[in-house]
Amino acid sequence: MRIALDAMGTDTRPTNDIAGGILASRTFGDTIVFVGPKSRIEAELEKHDTEGCQLEVLHAPYDIPMGERPADVIKAEATSSIHLALAAVKKNEVDAFVTMGNTGAVHALATMKILRRIPGVKRPVLSAVFPINDHRMLFLDVGANTDVKAEWVTQFAAMGSVYSQRVMGCRNPRVALLSNGAEETKGNSLIREASRNLSQSRLSFVGNIEPAELMTSVADVIVMDGFVGNIVLKTFEATTQYIANLIREELSADVLSMLGGALTRSAFQRLRRRVDTSAVGGAPLLGVNGVVIIGHGQNSPSGIMNAIGQARRAVEQDVIGAIRCAVAEEAVSIGAAKDAIDAK
Amino acid sequence: MRIALDAMGTDTRPTNDIAGGILASRTFGDTIVFVGPKSRIEAELEKHDTEGCQLEVLHAPYDIPMGERPADVIKAEATSSIHLALAAVKKNEVDAFVTMGNTGAVHALATMKILRRIPGVKRPVLSAVFPINDHRMLFLDVGANTDVKAEWVTQFAAMGSVYSQRVMGCRNPRVALLSNGAEETKGNSLIREASRNLSQSRLSFVGNIEPAELMTSVADVIVMDGFVGNIVLKTFEATTQYIANLIREELSADVLSMLGGALTRSAFQRLRRRVDTSAVGGAPLLGVNGVVIIGHGQNSPSGIMNAIGQARRAVEQDVIGAIRCAVAEEAVSIGAAKDAIDAK
Repeated sequence: MRIALDAMGTDTRPTNDIAGGILASRTFGDTIVFVGPKSRIEAELEKHDTEGCQLEVLHAPYDIPMGERPADVIKAEATSSIHLALAAVKKNEVDAFVTMGNTGAVHALATMKILRRIPGVKRPVLSAVFPINDHRMLFLDVGANTDVKAEWVTQFAAMGSVYSQRVMGCRNPRVALLSNGAEETKGNSLIREASRNLSQSRLSFVGNIEPAELMTSVADVIVMDGFVGNIVLKTFEATTQYIANLIREELSADVLSMLGGALTRSAFQRLRRRVDTSAVGGAPLLGVNGVVIIGHGQNSPSGIMNAIGQARRAVEQDVIGAIRCAVAEEAVSIGAAKDAIDAK
Repeated sequence: MRIALDAMGTDTRPTNDIAGGILASRTFGDTIVFVGPKSRIEAELEKHDTEGCQLEVLHAPYDIPMGERPADVIKAEATSSIHLALAAVKKNEVDAFVTMGNTGAVHALATMKILRRIPGVKRPVLSAVFPINDHRMLFLDVGANTDVKAEWVTQFAAMGSVYSQRVMGCRNPRVALLSNGAEETKGNSLIREASRNLSQSRLSFVGNIEPAELMTSVADVIVMDGFVGNIVLKTFEATTQYIANLIREELSADVLSMLGGALTRSAFQRLRRRVDTSAVGGAPLLGVNGVVIIGHGQNSPSGIMNAIGQARRAVEQDVIGAIRCAVAEEAVSIGAAKDAIDAK
């Protein structure tokens, strides 16, 4: 398999990207195509033992600044690592694209300019893998679509179910809708309509859940609009960070606490690993014509390897074909339901 | 001052409610009117030394079940503690109402049946006081309105600013709008319109903030729609609870961690106090014709006393009059702006 890896994705670009790509090539035996400025990639590669690895370089001179707006990215010259890597996916020169870079830029370029949507998909969707108590849930949308129609939500759930089943190994993914309470009367008008649609779909819809249930294992695929999803994810991360800072402060407040803090260091290291959302490496952009995995800019080399692991599994399991099929079947079943109603 | 206190509000009803009311009467010298079933209140009062306290009982036989829907509460007989206490506020028999009870029931009864809206107020709003690093922020809406119009958001901010200034002692409250990023291009259509309105208002609008900034002191009044506000608050609480459980697990995982855990007990007690949102006691329902403070059902007697402290300050500082004035001035200023545009 050939996987394009953005060499300029992480905050340490290209250091961790290159190290992660080498690790993945050695672990999986795949060809990793580093995409970025050739000289910088080659200089970085020289620091490593790459004996036996399948590594290639695709030269991409333009470096998209981290804060660049999606609209400007689309207009910018087509020589960034994201642009050229997506084009390589499109031309079947590689099987998938993995990046720790600018999520907005990847979403915009993939959706609107290069890969485009799988037929029947209303809106591609960004996801995140959320690890709670060793249970991995797929969250979507976490930011692609901020003003969402109820019918899109069912598609988000259908695409997420395919990914959960094929890549995350969940046999029968349970779908839940995030609301501010489990009762059907809760939620806003979008939630109430989306909830009705989901109960009528062929998905394993377990109902609406509230934030406390995100910390349990009641569902495998959790859907919401991209505005709320992005805020919930950021609130979780911000709260975790805030509590970590408070713990640090309180454990250095007096001698006894400092001593206790020293003794509990390994407990807190285990804790940190358990709340580290970057440990899973990345999550898919679903609904576009190609496998695209996006990870956090703070990812470690092993996190990047995990993201590549997801990409290769998505290719092996033909996630794109399965989504194409699921979307078509859903459309047929909605059409049949409408016909049945009209016939009455 | 005379303050009505719901005797049947907390999860321990009427235990903590009564203890909190007695504490408040002793501390502030006010008359506390306990509202609830007379015999249960009197039996509970006998367990306390009430010498020198100004305490009265308003008999309210009907007990609203905790999960009762707002629509059913409105239709139910008018003899619940919430109903009779709000009626007492309406008839000026008491100056304010404080409850740890069913938020939805209080909101529905106050808004639609008993106190009704202050003239000019589009929608009353539920708030929460959020203590971060000893800085207290007023959050609103946290659940009253799930489908919100942009123009209501400016009013939420105006009412919140009055409360922050008069009750929370903030001289010039900085208003922020919660979004999924600080940039103007972020957010959904509601956020973008609300953000434009707020920048044109006479409030001290500091712009859009994202969840990470909730954990800083960049603003004093944070506005959002009630669906997102409710979810953010619940996500914060659920995350805090989740991390607390993980800490408990990790600190009992091995002997060293257990020893360290014992030494850090006081550090974690301090930490718990710092993230305890119920420590502030309660927060106002703003926009109705009367002072109403709602607190958490898990409140301690001192938390209830703090909620009563907020109520008495809101009465002393004439928050209702100030909101009436702020809403009217805002309407005049919007009207003047429209006239100016029309005149062009």
